[in-house]
Amino acid sequence: MSFPARRSALRALLPGAGVDALLVTDLVNVRYLTGFTGSNASLLVHAGGDGASRFCTDGRYRTQAAAEVPDLETVIDRSGAQALAALVATLRIERLGFESDAVTVDAHDVLAEAAGVPLHRAPGLVQRLRAVKDADEVEALRRACAVGDAALAGLLDAGGLAPGRTEREVALDLEDRMRAHGASGPAFETILAAGAHSAVPHHRPTGSELRAGDLVKIDFGALVDGYHSDMTRTLVLGRAAAWQRELYALVAEAQAAGRAALVPGTAVAHVDAAARGVVERAGRGEEFVHGLGHGVGLQIHEAPSLAAAGTGAVEAGMVVTVEPGVYLPGRGGVRIEDTLVVRDGGPELLTHTTRELLEV
Amino acid sequence: MSFPARRSALRALLPGAGVDALLVTDLVNVRYLTGFTGSNASLLVHAGGDGASRFCTDGRYRTQAAAEVPDLETVIDRSGAQALAALVATLRIERLGFESDAVTVDAHDVLAEAAGVPLHRAPGLVQRLRAVKDADEVEALRRACAVGDAALAGLLDAGGLAPGRTEREVALDLEDRMRAHGASGPAFETILAAGAHSAVPHHRPTGSELRAGDLVKIDFGALVDGYHSDMTRTLVLGRAAAWQRELYALVAEAQAAGRAALVPGTAVAHVDAAARGVVERAGRGEEFVHGLGHGVGLQIHEAPSLAAAGTGAVEAGMVVTVEPGVYLPGRGGVRIEDTLVVRDGGPELLTHTTRELLEV
Repeated sequence: MSFPARRSALRALLPGAGVDALLVTDLVNVRYLTGFTGSNASLLVHAGGDGASRFCTDGRYRTQAAAEVPDLETVIDRSGAQALAALVATLRIERLGFESDAVTVDAHDVLAEAAGVPLHRAPGLVQRLRAVKDADEVEALRRACAVGDAALAGLLDAGGLAPGRTEREVALDLEDRMRAHGASGPAFETILAAGAHSAVPHHRPTGSELRAGDLVKIDFGALVDGYHSDMTRTLVLGRAAAWQRELYALVAEAQAAGRAALVPGTAVAHVDAAARGVVERAGRGEEFVHGLGHGVGLQIHEAPSLAAAGTGAVEAGMVVTVEPGVYLPGRGGVRIEDTLVVRDGGPELLTHTTRELLEV
Repeated sequence: MSFPARRSALRALLPGAGVDALLVTDLVNVRYLTGFTGSNASLLVHAGGDGASRFCTDGRYRTQAAAEVPDLETVIDRSGAQALAALVATLRIERLGFESDAVTVDAHDVLAEAAGVPLHRAPGLVQRLRAVKDADEVEALRRACAVGDAALAGLLDAGGLAPGRTEREVALDLEDRMRAHGASGPAFETILAAGAHSAVPHHRPTGSELRAGDLVKIDFGALVDGYHSDMTRTLVLGRAAAWQRELYALVAEAQAAGRAALVPGTAVAHVDAAARGVVERAGRGEEFVHGLGHGVGLQIHEAPSLAAAGTGAVEAGMVVTVEPGVYLPGRGGVRIEDTLVVRDGGPELLTHTTRELLEV
């Protein structure tokens, strides 16, 4: 979908939010609606169309804005959204909405003062659009996931997961391989956790060495054209012990149940419950300490949240992770995570590395 | 300074803010006050001391919190700051402050409802502390800057800046060298801009090749132990043309003037003006399109802002960048940037790469 089409889709949501213009200040939302990739920008989307809408950035980005956002009138101003809010009278805006889930309490006051009229809360509108990916976005996510698959395959082929290497070395090796495959960088700080460290859900790689018999949990992703991939695999260095095999089978079963529950119209809490139930029935519910998954796109974590406390339902075109984990403190943990597109005929996997237990 | 000492320093600011406890929800501020490096945490700093204060994170970080924050009672709760706000009665808090410059309008309502009492605005308290670095922080910044210096020296020694290489290749090469020297990663997206691209202040590296005669602007930094370095050098591939030499000399003079103005007690706007005046007197004020510099530490941009619109004065112990730039659209631009510690006897440079014009 083109950027003007995305702005049109947003305009269709404005009446429901009770506003005739929206001040978009969340930078990722601005990027989604305009394609602008700089570090400072805001956007006023006017119900009257692009002609009455305005883009704003500062002088550092004059050239970049002209290239990336040629189709909107651009205001160059260091005060950003404040300068746009001040256009309320000029653009005949009666009810100006703001992203109350992104604007701080102090920033709101500055904007309201610049506008000279009260602002109206309009949270989550762009996030709602972003949750359902268009074809271009799915292709970008597919490329990002393919980079992750290729990098992990290359690491394994090269014998990169071997006793004696440190967590940090292996993580760096994997990140280098993602860049070599075309990623602009890792999608987030790579988690590489061996042995007892694998029981720490968000372990940061250390200088400690991988040892034979370790569970090695690798949670990583590639950033490609602004889109993030996300995948976790847990392997064993050498032959798996019985308890490792058992733990792996449990998580794999839960993960399959979670993936199978990704049917359009299913409540996100129900998707979470489908996987969690498997773990709970095995008496390990307390050791599955996080939600089942999350949307992924221009941000590594975005709507929807597949969690017990999540609201809403999954829809066709959403791209989400499914990543149950069970962690036994002091011993080890297993997490298996894929990125999938929700489809009417059943979810489509974007991450293709095998989900069988690998003994390397 | 130890984390308990930082929390004590914050407590000393609470009476001035009219509160007897502060809910710290900005994750970087939480890290500064506790040492916690995970991705979700909040902190309630009670005037009564650490015994009445509480740290909060979610179940993924139970082990990490115990290791990194052993000295505070930890609440494990996915709702985070909400769970801490609900402790108002238990902890006998009369006036609970919140970071109104970090908390969104929607999040504020959730917190106020959890607290059951109105919250009080208390913006910028931790940022004020963070602006003046303690000895450990200066050492971390020194290490980060040394990594940047070493990586650039290695790149130049290896002939890495050569016609025919692409901006992207060179940027990646430089980032790899930073990691090899101990950085956990780049401090921000490396800017490597050759030829006319050097006139774009925040250019993103492309696949275009470096050519003989190009100005090459390199703005980069290393992330070391959570601290960021920041340095810009602009070089010429081959012999500099007269206009390049002249532009360089102007920016170098402005940069020296900015550095010399870093005297404790000087208004930040005055520091900016010291450098900007040099550029303006040369008739190029319009082409210096950004502020002079910024504080740097746990974030790449933090207080103070050395800009015309900035408030307050520089103080001994602040670590700031000084980075004037002059950009001639379509031709090329020059920026020279160092990271310095403000000291009573004159600023101390943390970045040591020569500021002479390099022809490579």
